[in-house]
Amino acid sequence: MKSKLIEVKQLTDLKFLNMYQSTFLMENGKTRIYYFASRRSLDQLGCKNTEYVDAIKVLPYFKKNGKTYVVLNYEFRSPLNAYTYDLCAGLVEHQNDKESDVKREIFEEVGAKVKSVKQVMKSGHTTAGLTDENISCYFAEIEDIGEQHLEETEDITREIIALEDIPEFLENNTVGATGNLLLQVFYYKNILEMKENKESTAKDNFEM
Amino acid sequence: MKSKLIEVKQLTDLKFLNMYQSTFLMENGKTRIYYFASRRSLDQLGCKNTEYVDAIKVLPYFKKNGKTYVVLNYEFRSPLNAYTYDLCAGLVEHQNDKESDVKREIFEEVGAKVKSVKQVMKSGHTTAGLTDENISCYFAEIEDIGEQHLEETEDITREIIALEDIPEFLENNTVGATGNLLLQVFYYKNILEMKENKESTAKDNFEM
Repeated sequence: MKSKLIEVKQLTDLKFLNMYQSTFLMENGKTRIYYFASRRSLDQLGCKNTEYVDAIKVLPYFKKNGKTYVVLNYEFRSPLNAYTYDLCAGLVEHQNDKESDVKREIFEEVGAKVKSVKQVMKSGHTTAGLTDENISCYFAEIEDIGEQHLEETEDITREIIALEDIPEFLENNTVGATGNLLLQVFYYKNILEMKENKESTAKDNFEM
Repeated sequence: MKSKLIEVKQLTDLKFLNMYQSTFLMENGKTRIYYFASRRSLDQLGCKNTEYVDAIKVLPYFKKNGKTYVVLNYEFRSPLNAYTYDLCAGLVEHQNDKESDVKREIFEEVGAKVKSVKQVMKSGHTTAGLTDENISCYFAEIEDIGEQHLEETEDITREIIALEDIPEFLENNTVGATGNLLLQVFYYKNILEMKENKESTAKDNFEM
């Protein structure tokens, strides 16, 4: 049933995350209340600023001796009071230059310089029934990892996995949802490309 | 820096989503406050019940005349006050039989019977910096789509896309983050399988 937004009210007054209440008028004349959480201020909510991206998530990988490796975070997440695997991520500071945010987060969390960045998803809401949080996703080729530059509140160690071990790792470990799926996209895309390269090399050899 | 959970307090008293405040004691003796949103009650929060899965997300697909098609939702999302593309989803009602939740949501939102279900991700947090929400992801082969069975508050139309059109669709449209990535996994996995099947057929033909 179609409904029209009448009002949005901020229910909490916290620094990094707040609860909002929106009131909709439905086609049948009844009102409907919907609660959601947001990292944004009332005037920048997703219903007002649709272009804004809250955070970036990035899969860092490097090549060494002809093999490809990905780097995961093993990170303490306060809402879970637990360590979980996920990928490098951070809030966007430069809406018009999110690649600089990608490079900063890789420098801080992974301790590496970035060689190239490829956008895998321009924007997508992490869980649109609950929040207006919007993220962009990337693959980033990095140089070999070095020293991390973490903030005082961050507790992150790194886990390096060979491309071909991704499926088994995901079978045996819990990884954040977008991180898990980005790893799967990376895996299948790379296996497919390797197969295509092999085919075209075989074809070239045959034609010589 | 490592920290120890001291206390979790519920800040709001709403029906479907609440704001929580956790207090941590850090190694340096200082306390640290962290706010997060949750669909769960205080005694079932992610820091207490790690196995609980809040919701399922499923990519429905069908085969017709030798081609594969996926079904997307075009759905009104209240936190965005907008229609966005995403995949079929719903809250889990049967923790020990989530396939029944997959089938119910496909019946309601897609209007189809399910032929088979494949788990793509057992569990993963949608955005662990903001909420303890945990989801499971699936691919489901369905029979051709029929009539939807939506709830009064749901406003969902369906969009059918051929497998090979997925990359162009994602290039030109915004899709929820896990939905977008599930579509990419499905695309690359299927293209890879088609290539492998072709190879093994070519090999069989050669060996005959």
